[in-house]
Amino acid sequence: MRFTEKLAARWREADTLLCVGLDPDPNRFPAPLRDRDDAIFAFCRAIVDATAEFACAFKPQIAYFASHRAEDQLENLLAHIRSAHPQVPVILDAKRGDIGSTAEHYAREAFERYGADAVTLSPYMGLDSIEPFLEYTDRGVFLLCRTSNPGGNDLQMLDVGGVHLYEHVARLAASQWNTNGQLGLVVGATYPNELARVRALAGELPLLVPGIGAQGGDVQAAVQAGRTARGDGLAINSSRAILYAGHGEDFAAAAHEAARRTRDEINRHRRR
Amino acid sequence: MRFTEKLAARWREADTLLCVGLDPDPNRFPAPLRDRDDAIFAFCRAIVDATAEFACAFKPQIAYFASHRAEDQLENLLAHIRSAHPQVPVILDAKRGDIGSTAEHYAREAFERYGADAVTLSPYMGLDSIEPFLEYTDRGVFLLCRTSNPGGNDLQMLDVGGVHLYEHVARLAASQWNTNGQLGLVVGATYPNELARVRALAGELPLLVPGIGAQGGDVQAAVQAGRTARGDGLAINSSRAILYAGHGEDFAAAAHEAARRTRDEINRHRRR
Repeated sequence: MRFTEKLAARWREADTLLCVGLDPDPNRFPAPLRDRDDAIFAFCRAIVDATAEFACAFKPQIAYFASHRAEDQLENLLAHIRSAHPQVPVILDAKRGDIGSTAEHYAREAFERYGADAVTLSPYMGLDSIEPFLEYTDRGVFLLCRTSNPGGNDLQMLDVGGVHLYEHVARLAASQWNTNGQLGLVVGATYPNELARVRALAGELPLLVPGIGAQGGDVQAAVQAGRTARGDGLAINSSRAILYAGHGEDFAAAAHEAARRTRDEINRHRRR
Repeated sequence: MRFTEKLAARWREADTLLCVGLDPDPNRFPAPLRDRDDAIFAFCRAIVDATAEFACAFKPQIAYFASHRAEDQLENLLAHIRSAHPQVPVILDAKRGDIGSTAEHYAREAFERYGADAVTLSPYMGLDSIEPFLEYTDRGVFLLCRTSNPGGNDLQMLDVGGVHLYEHVARLAASQWNTNGQLGLVVGATYPNELARVRALAGELPLLVPGIGAQGGDVQAAVQAGRTARGDGLAINSSRAILYAGHGEDFAAAAHEAARRTRDEINRHRRR
């Protein structure tokens, strides 16, 4: 099954558009976990098990593992998800981008070493920097399009012949670059007008939408701007608001409740 | 000492603009090394020791380590360079790009975990994605500008109000974005006309120039297009042509000779 089909199946079968972002920060872990050698794995596994029923995808952010020399814990976490929650795809948030043989090595890192279902990439180096990833035909690629940060304006809002650069990227991803139906786009919830514009340009492409919660994006606006006619097409990411919903021994139960509430809030706006 | 000063000191004192790229591929290692558990470290250490006298910088490409689960060998390699060749700065080629707290984690990975002197980043997400790296005031950042691959055309050659996108990036890097003199740019040797244009726009900014050798860029054209009035300003990268100059037990001696020849070829065109 292709990644985009696996994600669509999960939207339908679990009735959720919530992507649970895994940005583990040991300083925010509950005290009993903090001293474990495998604290990052143990924390994330507890979150994953507590939230899987509400998740259309998990999105580990690789920087949080790499800055702590915890690549082995990321490997173990993805192995756990494949084994315990095989129906929930994993999007490795790595924002890679490089050429030729180097891109092949990054693809091997994401898809073979970690076994991710999809990866985030930067479009700046062009189609040939993406092709080595697309050769894994059952996997997916989310290209950065309109990112959720204010600095996203610096390049993405430049006028490139009557459209903004992010619109040009959305068009490429929905046409010439999408040779095998493997592409999606990253569009921040903080810019609902641009999210609506990307949906208009990109047809049914899956959109990975960060920026609700701590970054201030509004769930209702994001869902109404980004949904397809079918009321799906979105993986709306929440990280900190779920991971750190509780700070004591009940952190997993608190994450469960936060994920359920967020899933429900998203669903309230899907079909109107 | 700031990174840009360290690099400039090395240009002067060692009379070289050659950057030795470390893209280790175990399939191409000489047979006696291949079976060692630390083959990647051992190979790169031998290359580093054989070429340091001709190098203005070393540029390890992190994907080659990550795809082989060899982050520990990359750590050991950078520790070895700091100890044995402290005057040669290390540019970690990672092409990262992310926002806020995630960028902080990538900066910690590059500058604290690996102890790199500089890192390559993508400009697509804007200035606020670069700032967490610039907070390490003694380190440097090379922003992707005009990359050496054909697909670089896809976005970088778009017209953004009378200039190409890569020219716009060069201007930003030479002005508003370069708040503390820490920035450089990545410009491929395969496009000498654009390299000359970047030099005209970017003043004395250091340019990291991949693309000679295996990718077909011409050394004379690149040096003449990219040099400053002082005859420096460039870190011209060669990876495969040096790493795999020899295939037997004499690989380090062959790399030594290849690095010397490349350094000399670059120098022949610096001051004309």
